[in-house]
Amino acid sequence: MAEEFSFQVTARCGRARRGVIHTPHGTVDTPAFIPVGTRGALKGLTPAQVVETGTQIVLANTYHLVLRPGAEAVARLGGLHRFMGWERPLLTDSGGYQVFSLAALRDADDDGVEFRSHIDGARLRLGPESSIRAQNQLGADVTMAFDECPPLPAEPAVLRDAVRRTVLWAQRCRAAHQRPDQALYGVVQGGLDLRLRRQCLEQLAALDFDGYALGGLSVGEPVEEMWALLDAFADELPADRPRYLMGVGTPRDLVTAVAAGIDLFDCVLPTRNGRKGYLFTSRGVRRLRNASHRLSDEPPDPDCDCYTCRNFSCGYLRHLLLSGEVLGATLVSLHNISYYQELMRQMRAAIEAGSFEQWCRCFAARQPADAPGEDEP
Amino acid sequence: MAEEFSFQVTARCGRARRGVIHTPHGTVDTPAFIPVGTRGALKGLTPAQVVETGTQIVLANTYHLVLRPGAEAVARLGGLHRFMGWERPLLTDSGGYQVFSLAALRDADDDGVEFRSHIDGARLRLGPESSIRAQNQLGADVTMAFDECPPLPAEPAVLRDAVRRTVLWAQRCRAAHQRPDQALYGVVQGGLDLRLRRQCLEQLAALDFDGYALGGLSVGEPVEEMWALLDAFADELPADRPRYLMGVGTPRDLVTAVAAGIDLFDCVLPTRNGRKGYLFTSRGVRRLRNASHRLSDEPPDPDCDCYTCRNFSCGYLRHLLLSGEVLGATLVSLHNISYYQELMRQMRAAIEAGSFEQWCRCFAARQPADAPGEDEP
Repeated sequence: MAEEFSFQVTARCGRARRGVIHTPHGTVDTPAFIPVGTRGALKGLTPAQVVETGTQIVLANTYHLVLRPGAEAVARLGGLHRFMGWERPLLTDSGGYQVFSLAALRDADDDGVEFRSHIDGARLRLGPESSIRAQNQLGADVTMAFDECPPLPAEPAVLRDAVRRTVLWAQRCRAAHQRPDQALYGVVQGGLDLRLRRQCLEQLAALDFDGYALGGLSVGEPVEEMWALLDAFADELPADRPRYLMGVGTPRDLVTAVAAGIDLFDCVLPTRNGRKGYLFTSRGVRRLRNASHRLSDEPPDPDCDCYTCRNFSCGYLRHLLLSGEVLGATLVSLHNISYYQELMRQMRAAIEAGSFEQWCRCFAARQPADAPGEDEP
Repeated sequence: MAEEFSFQVTARCGRARRGVIHTPHGTVDTPAFIPVGTRGALKGLTPAQVVETGTQIVLANTYHLVLRPGAEAVARLGGLHRFMGWERPLLTDSGGYQVFSLAALRDADDDGVEFRSHIDGARLRLGPESSIRAQNQLGADVTMAFDECPPLPAEPAVLRDAVRRTVLWAQRCRAAHQRPDQALYGVVQGGLDLRLRRQCLEQLAALDFDGYALGGLSVGEPVEEMWALLDAFADELPADRPRYLMGVGTPRDLVTAVAAGIDLFDCVLPTRNGRKGYLFTSRGVRRLRNASHRLSDEPPDPDCDCYTCRNFSCGYLRHLLLSGEVLGATLVSLHNISYYQELMRQMRAAIEAGSFEQWCRCFAARQPADAPGEDEP
């Protein structure tokens, strides 16, 4: 592993793991949820509010920061921690996912991807070396290898070629990575094909990454197929490194993945759904814009002790959302992230107590049969 | 004065006054600045953040709350303090200014104003009795009499008729006001005509209001004419009641008005300009979107100790503003309100110390000659 980094698994329950990741900016208790601050800010939340949710680590997107203000500008402004006012653990992704999903007119070859900025149409390139260079300039504690992430369903030939390139790029990322104070994680691709996933992992493991991520999931496939792949494959990721499921997911996804042996997650769901007025609770998702909340003086989530639930009613949040007051998005996002962090805290405690399976049964029993609303937005 | 209310002037320096207003929800140190939470929320700021700025009292607009969610809905949700999560002093205006400036197709007579909602076109009425009823339902600590506020310049006949109606409505408001736990302030109209202002005040003073406001200023007239009216008239308002200059203004306006004997101010400037990226400082206004701030690691205002200035650089704020991240508006608004509150704190201290005139000279010397930017947005 890189200097200054270490990972210990401190408890197990079935395949679920309780662990601690050390970074130069502090520790991360796993399983951990990583909220997304795409452009160097969680939408509508100050770092002080993010800390209040129980969050220990935050993600920022290399693609967005390279486009604006530029990785070099962030470096000259003191690096990403100083830039964002977040002096705790930070992770940057590689930009691979975004160049394939957001950029226009892209043109990929084995050296990387040429694309046009979705902001001003400028022609840019991102590849293994330039992604690592940008991530070294940004200076997050954890960086990610540049990968190719095809949407699902995909033809077998497309998946095979994405794995070939992902491995090739992983080798070049390993060679390009310069800063011993930054960890570098590899990303396993291969879609829902277990043989391809194993083949990709085998080649990545030979490169001795500081952690291993599963990419290319929650990109169009039915959720049951993702769960089946996790069940079959997550525990094959190296046991002595953090295992990171990228871009996932709903509370149910997180519970399923932790049970399969995953340690880290990032997802825009709590903030994106928060802005739309969808509130996560232990009894399912509430649509706060519903007329039924108009005169409700109830707290948004009676089981929650976050700032939003301690101070405001459903009726008030509905009023803010209907009025287009951005404070509504802030308060619901604040709750949703707090809800996700409380979920992780409960899972960590249950793993430590050896009662994780029992906890999972209670969690499942509280979910509405059809998990209404979770995918509505 | 109404029960539970009192006002003491604790120090004077020239015509400037240092005082304390007691309300059922706490005290307000005057001179005081009241930030505006139009729809029951300061734009983008939680009550906890508002407290952090040093704010003691907040204003909400009766017009906006009557339209949505309705004053009765707010009452059923526990009243405005509980609704907003703001258990400190609160003030509501009467809606008079808004029905004349925002509502469509209005039709005014001596009973009030019939208008169409700017949200859904619904036909509504607001008059002295209905404004007071709504403000009694909202439950703020300080309520305002319903008045007619003509924009300037105005024909003498228009101003005279506005004063006639304002006095008539003030009498009806006094009679309609029900709650002894709410103060009721009268609003003096009369434009820039000193004789009309005096005549209006004389009739209002006979009604023994708990405070007296100057309305109908900063509504189109040159700022020097407003300052001249304040200089000539502010100190004629009853000395034993709070004096409130409505909807004003720039830092320089506030200093000028305090020197003339005003105690209270409300204005959207710090939040509205904050959303546009204009930052108030003791050396003038900074336009944070300027390219000159791109690589600036300087704090937004080196003289300020607010959350924004302690934690973020000009370069980061510029990035947030250019990226359309709402956190930018939140952080600049947070600073701007903190700046206004620090300005009030300094004025209170200078009045107590007997050095207010000297303080005013220092303040004026620090202002750029042409106060660049203050009116730009």
